[in-house]
Amino acid sequence: MASDGTLYAQIESALVARFGVDLHPGNKLPTEDSLIDEYGVSRITVRRALQNLASKGFIVTKRGIGSFVATPALSQPLTALTSFVEDMDAHGLNTTARVLVVEEITAPAHVREALELPLGAKVVRIERVRLAAGQPVSLDETYLPLHLGRLVAQGDLENEPIFDLLEKRHDTPLVEAAYALKAGTADSPTAAALDVDEGSAIFRIERTSFTTGQKPVDYEILHYRADAMTFTMRLPRAGASGDAE
Amino acid sequence: MASDGTLYAQIESALVARFGVDLHPGNKLPTEDSLIDEYGVSRITVRRALQNLASKGFIVTKRGIGSFVATPALSQPLTALTSFVEDMDAHGLNTTARVLVVEEITAPAHVREALELPLGAKVVRIERVRLAAGQPVSLDETYLPLHLGRLVAQGDLENEPIFDLLEKRHDTPLVEAAYALKAGTADSPTAAALDVDEGSAIFRIERTSFTTGQKPVDYEILHYRADAMTFTMRLPRAGASGDAE
Repeated sequence: MASDGTLYAQIESALVARFGVDLHPGNKLPTEDSLIDEYGVSRITVRRALQNLASKGFIVTKRGIGSFVATPALSQPLTALTSFVEDMDAHGLNTTARVLVVEEITAPAHVREALELPLGAKVVRIERVRLAAGQPVSLDETYLPLHLGRLVAQGDLENEPIFDLLEKRHDTPLVEAAYALKAGTADSPTAAALDVDEGSAIFRIERTSFTTGQKPVDYEILHYRADAMTFTMRLPRAGASGDAE
Repeated sequence: MASDGTLYAQIESALVARFGVDLHPGNKLPTEDSLIDEYGVSRITVRRALQNLASKGFIVTKRGIGSFVATPALSQPLTALTSFVEDMDAHGLNTTARVLVVEEITAPAHVREALELPLGAKVVRIERVRLAAGQPVSLDETYLPLHLGRLVAQGDLENEPIFDLLEKRHDTPLVEAAYALKAGTADSPTAAALDVDEGSAIFRIERTSFTTGQKPVDYEILHYRADAMTFTMRLPRAGASGDAE
């Protein structure tokens, strides 16, 4: 949230901190009067905070009825390789992760191809739900080569991004990534993890991150809630105008 | 299709030309023997053509049963503003369009905002199904400012890309575009237009194309069949590794 020290920014932060704790999507926010009492601020401060939250898409205000926690509507530029935590930081949202699986498996064919591993190679597979302001946004499967994966698996995966573990603790700088974006619908386990209905639209992003020397070190399949996420970019026209097909 | 003049490339082209005409997804292709008869070529040529079509994902060959027309599986780099026809050309696929709607309407709010038009401005709205090798791939809504839209609407929209009409006939070079990618599921009319089941996953791309002087001239909402389309890109790591979050 806006980290300037204004009073309304503090109320905003206080409310966002409650999202996913005692305020879930669809829940009614406390009334203006109770927020005035609770935080000891003026009506104009409360209104300014609520207006800001509404303009950022965190709440929906219905005239004469009250304000409600919205489904997050996040917009993310696809211009550089960034981590979920970096992306959510850009929205002023605090993040957490719920670790579902950490295991060592024989790399399936698509993982082997992405990480350029020989037949029979083992990998570490990590499955996490990523939450922003307490709401599940993405279900991430991460595949790492065995040695690196074992090191990463010793980290605090609930609180420390895997990119941080790779780059800061295990001397594996990330240089670039190859993305493949697909769209699909949530099967039952994905729907449960993301707290959406089965059959809801999801983005399915296959991302292979490379360290120096074009060496693939991290292959992920990210399942984003489509209702929460828009990817944006700006692209120049191919070729000179005129010789375009 | 491969436009080199080899015999197998000619058989490939001949078969692709029949997709959507008398060969639809799931249809069985003629047997090797009948293709040999029909095109007057050797078995080795027919096999080479079928192998190429299979490796490009146009057909699926089941050993001992035969070859079947596949759902198109297209991969498209998101690196430059390109038209549907340019994209399909890159796959060697011929394209057609089915025009569903050409009308003049008062711009709805989202169209007004994208095209920077005043309240009450009229726009031309064009709705087309885009086909590649005879198979529907995208349902496109195009919104154009009234004057330009009327000019474009006089063009041959079944055969001539709107980008071509803008750039080559109406002196409106396209310079760049802003993209917003969303995922969703097909409602009943979209499903019917794309020949998929209702509730199937779709990419929903809102694209505003700009001419010189940062002037928006073309706002589109593209609904791609998610089963047919993967978008790819390669992105560099944000910032220097090390100061990453």
